[in-house]
Amino acid sequence: MRLAFNTWVYSSFPIWVPSYPLDETIRRLARIGYDAIEIGAAAPHAYPDYLDAAARAEIRSLLADNGIAVSSMLPAPGGGPGFNVASPLEAERRNAVDQYKKVATLCSDLGGEILLYVAGWQVFGTQQEQAWDWCRAALREVAHHAAGLGVTVAVEPTSADSNLVESCDGALRMMRETEAPNVKVMFDTYHCLYRNEVPTDYVYAMGADLAHVHLADINRGAPGDGRVDYAGLVAALRDVGYDGYLAMEIGFDRRAVEPDNIARRAYDYMKPLVTGVGR
Amino acid sequence: MRLAFNTWVYSSFPIWVPSYPLDETIRRLARIGYDAIEIGAAAPHAYPDYLDAAARAEIRSLLADNGIAVSSMLPAPGGGPGFNVASPLEAERRNAVDQYKKVATLCSDLGGEILLYVAGWQVFGTQQEQAWDWCRAALREVAHHAAGLGVTVAVEPTSADSNLVESCDGALRMMRETEAPNVKVMFDTYHCLYRNEVPTDYVYAMGADLAHVHLADINRGAPGDGRVDYAGLVAALRDVGYDGYLAMEIGFDRRAVEPDNIARRAYDYMKPLVTGVGR
Amino acid sequence: MRLAFNTWVYSSFPIWVPSYPLDETIRRLARIGYDAIEIGAAAPHAYPDYLDAAARAEIRSLLADNGIAVSSMLPAPGGGPGFNVASPLEAERRNAVDQYKKVATLCSDLGGEILLYVAGWQVFGTQQEQAWDWCRAALREVAHHAAGLGVTVAVEPTSADSNLVESCDGALRMMRETEAPNVKVMFDTYHCLYRNEVPTDYVYAMGADLAHVHLADINRGAPGDGRVDYAGLVAALRDVGYDGYLAMEIGFDRRAVEPDNIARRAYDYMKPLVTGVGR
Amino acid sequence: MRLAFNTWVYSSFPIWVPSYPLDETIRRLARIGYDAIEIGAAAPHAYPDYLDAAARAEIRSLLADNGIAVSSMLPAPGGGPGFNVASPLEAERRNAVDQYKKVATLCSDLGGEILLYVAGWQVFGTQQEQAWDWCRAALREVAHHAAGLGVTVAVEPTSADSNLVESCDGALRMMRETEAPNVKVMFDTYHCLYRNEVPTDYVYAMGADLAHVHLADINRGAPGDGRVDYAGLVAALRDVGYDGYLAMEIGFDRRAVEPDNIARRAYDYMKPLVTGVGR
Repeated sequence: MRLAFNTWVYSSFPIWVPSYPLDETIRRLARIGYDAIEIGAAAPHAYPDYLDAAARAEIRSLLADNGIAVSSMLPAPGGGPGFNVASPLEAERRNAVDQYKKVATLCSDLGGEILLYVAGWQVFGTQQEQAWDWCRAALREVAHHAAGLGVTVAVEPTSADSNLVESCDGALRMMRETEAPNVKVMFDTYHCLYRNEVPTDYVYAMGADLAHVHLADINRGAPGDGRVDYAGLVAALRDVGYDGYLAMEIGFDRRAVEPDNIARRAYDYMKPLVTGVGR
Repeated sequence: MRLAFNTWVYSSFPIWVPSYPLDETIRRLARIGYDAIEIGAAAPHAYPDYLDAAARAEIRSLLADNGIAVSSMLPAPGGGPGFNVASPLEAERRNAVDQYKKVATLCSDLGGEILLYVAGWQVFGTQQEQAWDWCRAALREVAHHAAGLGVTVAVEPTSADSNLVESCDGALRMMRETEAPNVKVMFDTYHCLYRNEVPTDYVYAMGADLAHVHLADINRGAPGDGRVDYAGLVAALRDVGYDGYLAMEIGFDRRAVEPDNIARRAYDYMKPLVTGVGR
Repeated sequence: MRLAFNTWVYSSFPIWVPSYPLDETIRRLARIGYDAIEIGAAAPHAYPDYLDAAARAEIRSLLADNGIAVSSMLPAPGGGPGFNVASPLEAERRNAVDQYKKVATLCSDLGGEILLYVAGWQVFGTQQEQAWDWCRAALREVAHHAAGLGVTVAVEPTSADSNLVESCDGALRMMRETEAPNVKVMFDTYHCLYRNEVPTDYVYAMGADLAHVHLADINRGAPGDGRVDYAGLVAALRDVGYDGYLAMEIGFDRRAVEPDNIARRAYDYMKPLVTGVGR
Repeated sequence: MRLAFNTWVYSSFPIWVPSYPLDETIRRLARIGYDAIEIGAAAPHAYPDYLDAAARAEIRSLLADNGIAVSSMLPAPGGGPGFNVASPLEAERRNAVDQYKKVATLCSDLGGEILLYVAGWQVFGTQQEQAWDWCRAALREVAHHAAGLGVTVAVEPTSADSNLVESCDGALRMMRETEAPNVKVMFDTYHCLYRNEVPTDYVYAMGADLAHVHLADINRGAPGDGRVDYAGLVAALRDVGYDGYLAMEIGFDRRAVEPDNIARRAYDYMKPLVTGVGR
C-alpha cells in the first residue's frame, strides 16, 4: 500500500484560501515523502479547460523530477456548473458527463489510472429511482470513455455530502448495474464515520472490487488525530489483498489550516502502519 | 428598503444538499413575503450556460406570477472553474471575466439591475499589487459590459473568505480606481463581524456609493439570532438615504438547515424593522 | 391534526427505569390533554403475550374512561428476541413476523388503526438486496394480516438506528414494492435530523401516502426545545391535507428524565400550532 | 486471571447496528487473543429459542477450532419481553424465570459455567420489599435449575441501570438470602463508577464469593481510556485469590463504535497487567 495526498486543501476548492499553485503543491508533497498525489480538477490546479498540451507535459515532467506519481483524479462538484450527474437539468447532466470525460483524459495525460466518481445527488422533486437512472447512465458513458484510456472509475459513496450513493452497498449496486469491467468501488473513512459505520466492514464487503481508499478522520482531520482504527483498517486491507493507494483527503473544509502541517502529520502517522512487519 | 433573500441555501452551492429547483425556490420565497430574490449563478438554479432564451422567459414569467423581483445576481466562485479574477492562470482570469459578463446578461434578462463583484483572492506566489491589477482590469471589462445592460456592479469586501478586497476602504479604493460610473460598493454584515468591525461604520463611509447590502449574523445565521444591531443598522441606512435591498445571505454553509425556516425567521425579524414608524 | 404521545419513556424499553404501569401512563397522558396514546409493545405495558382478553378489555375500558384513544402501536426491536425482519437467522425473521402480527391484533383490540413497521437492519455479511427482500416479504405477510383487522401498516425510515430503510425514498420504494393497499409511509423528524434533511421535504414527497408522523427534536428532545421548524412543518402537513396524528416519541433514550415533564412541554408547545387560525 | 469479551457491542442489543453474526464475532475475538467470550443471549447471537441442538453443536465446534472458551452468559433485559424478575406483571416474571433457565441451559451447552443474574427493577407503584421478594424467589428457581447443570449464578449490582440490587452489600444480601450454594456475586467497574465507589472495596467485601468481574470505564469505554485504577484492581483480586475471568463489557451503548478496535485496545491494555511479574 502506498500513500497519496489529495490536493483540495492546497487549492481554491471549496475554500478559496490558502491556495498554492500546482507546481508548489507537487514539490511540497514529494518533499514530505508521499508516493503519489491525488489531483482535484479545480482551479488553480487542474481544471481541464485551463490546461493545454504544453501545460500537461510540463506537469508530467515536474512529477517525474520530484519522483511522485499521480494516484488518481476527481472533479470538483457543487460549484457554479454543479456537475451533478443526477441533476434535473439536462444541460447540467450533459455538462457533468463531459467534465468527467475531460478529467479522465487529463488523469491519463498525467499518468494516473484512477478516476473517482461522485454519484451526484437528488434535488427536491426528483424521484430517487430517476436520479439513480441518470447517475448510472452517466457512469456508463464515463466508464466507456475511461476504458479507452486504461482508466478505472471508482464509485465513492459520499454520505456526508450527498443523498444518492450513500453506503457500501449503494456503491456496489451502482457498480454491478453499470456492467462495465473498469467500474470499481472505493470508500472514504470520513463518510463511514458520518454514517457511524465501521471502515473494515467496507473493506470486507468491497473486497476484490476495492480500487481506492480515502483516509480522513472526524472533521476531516488527519489520521491519528481522530477516532478511526487505522491499525485495524490496514490489517483488513491486507486480509483482502488490497495493494492500491491510501489517499488522505483532509483539512480542505476550513480556512484556518496549514496544508503542509496536516499533510506531514498524516504521513508520519500512516507510514509506519503501512510498512509495519505485522503485514 | 425592501427585503430580498439569496438563493445559496436552496441551491447546490457550496453545500450540495438540500437543493431545490429555482421555480420551487421562487414560490417559497414569495409565499414568505420577500420583495425580491437574489439569485446565485450556480446549478441547479441559474448557471448561465444552462439557461437558454426560453428558460429565461419562463423564469421571468414565474417571477411576475409570484409578484417577486430579482434584486441582484452573483457568480459562485471557488468550484472547479474557480472564477478567481486574480488567479495566476491567465485562462482562469479570462474565464472569470466571461462568467461575470454572462451573469450580468442573465441578471438583466431576469429584470435585475445589480451584479455583485467578488474581487478574487491571492494565490501563493502572486504579489498583492499584481493581484489587485488583475482584479481591477477584470472589473473594468465587466463594468463596461454591464453598463450596456443598465446593470450596476457592486464591489463586495469579502474578508471572511478572501484576502484581496477585504475592507470598507479596500472596496472604495477598488471602486474609485476603476473610474466607471456603474461601479459601486456594498457590504455584508457577516464580513464586518469577521473583522470585528461595526456595520454602521460601513454605511457612513460608503454613503451614496452604497448599492447593496447583505445581512447575515455569526455563523451565517439569520438576523435576530446573533449579535448584529439591526435596528441601528436600519437607522444608519436611513440616515444616508439608502433605498436599495437588504438581502439575507444566510444558512448556506451547512447541510443541517431548513431553508424555509431560516428564510421565514429572517423575514419575520427584519420586516417590522424596515417598515417601522421609527423611520 | 391530533396529538399523541409514545409510551417508551414511561416503559422499560430501552432504558429500564423510570417505568410506570400502563394504567398510570394512560391517566397521566389524558390529564395532560393528549388526544391519543401510541403504545409500544414492550413490558410492562403491552407485550402481546402478557395480555389476555380480560386485560385487553380492561385497558380499552380505561382508555374510554379517560377519553383518550390509541393512535398507533409498534413493536420494540433490538432486545433479546431481536425482531429484525432482515436477520440472517430464519428463526428470528419468523419470530419477528409473528410479533408484528400479534402487535397488529393487539392494536386492533385496543381500538388502534395504525401499526408502525420498523424495517429491520443489515447484519454484517448480509447483502443489502437480500436484506431488502426479507424485509419486503415480512411486510407483505404482516400487511395481509393487518388488512383483515382494518389496520394500516406505516413504514418508517429509521436512519438513526438502522441501515436498511433509511430515507424518504427508501420508505416509499418499500411501500410501492409491497403492492398492498394498507401499506403506507410515515416519518420521524428525529431521523430527518440524523440525515440532516428537511422534514417538509418528507411531507411533500410522501403526500397522500403519509399515514403517521413522529415528532422529536435533537437528542430526542421535546418539540420547541431543539431546532426543527414545527410551524413550517404543520403548514406543509396542511398543504398536503394530512389529518392524522402527530405522535411525540421523545425522552426515552436516557434515565435522567421526568416523563410527565417532557410530555407536558411537548403538548404545550404543539397544541397552539395545530389549533392555530393560520390553518 | 483470564480475559474475556462481552458480545453486546457485536450484537443488536441494545443498539441495532453494527451487528455481526456469532461465528464472525468468535473468530475476531480469538484472533485478538481473548481467552474467552461472554455471550449475551440476544439476537442475532444467542437467543435460546433460535438455537436448536445442531446450531449449538456448531457453535461449540467453532469455539474449539478457534481455541476460545465461553466464560459466561447473560440475558438481555429491557426489550419487548422485559425479563424483569421484579415486574408487577406475573406473566412477565414467569417469562423472565423461564428465560434465565433457558440461558443457563444454553450456557452449559456451550461449555460455560457462569450465568449472570440481573436482579430486575422496581416499576412505579411496586413496594421495594415486594420487588425484592419477587427477585429472590426468581433467583432461587433459576439457581436450582442451574445447579443441575453445574452452572454458578452470579448476582450483579447494576446501579447505573436499575433500582433494586444497586450496591455491593445489596448483592451480598441477595446472595445470602437465597441460601443456594451455587449463587455467588460479581461486580462491574462501570457500576462502581456510577456510584462513585472504589472497585477494590468490592473485591475485598466480596472476597471468596466473587465469581465474575466486568471491566468498563466511564462511558462504557475500554480499560485504559478512563479513570479506573486497573493495576490496583488486579493486585486486589490477587490478594483475595480470584482466579476467574475479567470480562470487558464495553462500547455497546453507542452506534459510533468499531467493535474490533475497542476489543483490541482493551486487550492490549489489560494483558500485560494480568500476566505481569507483579503477581
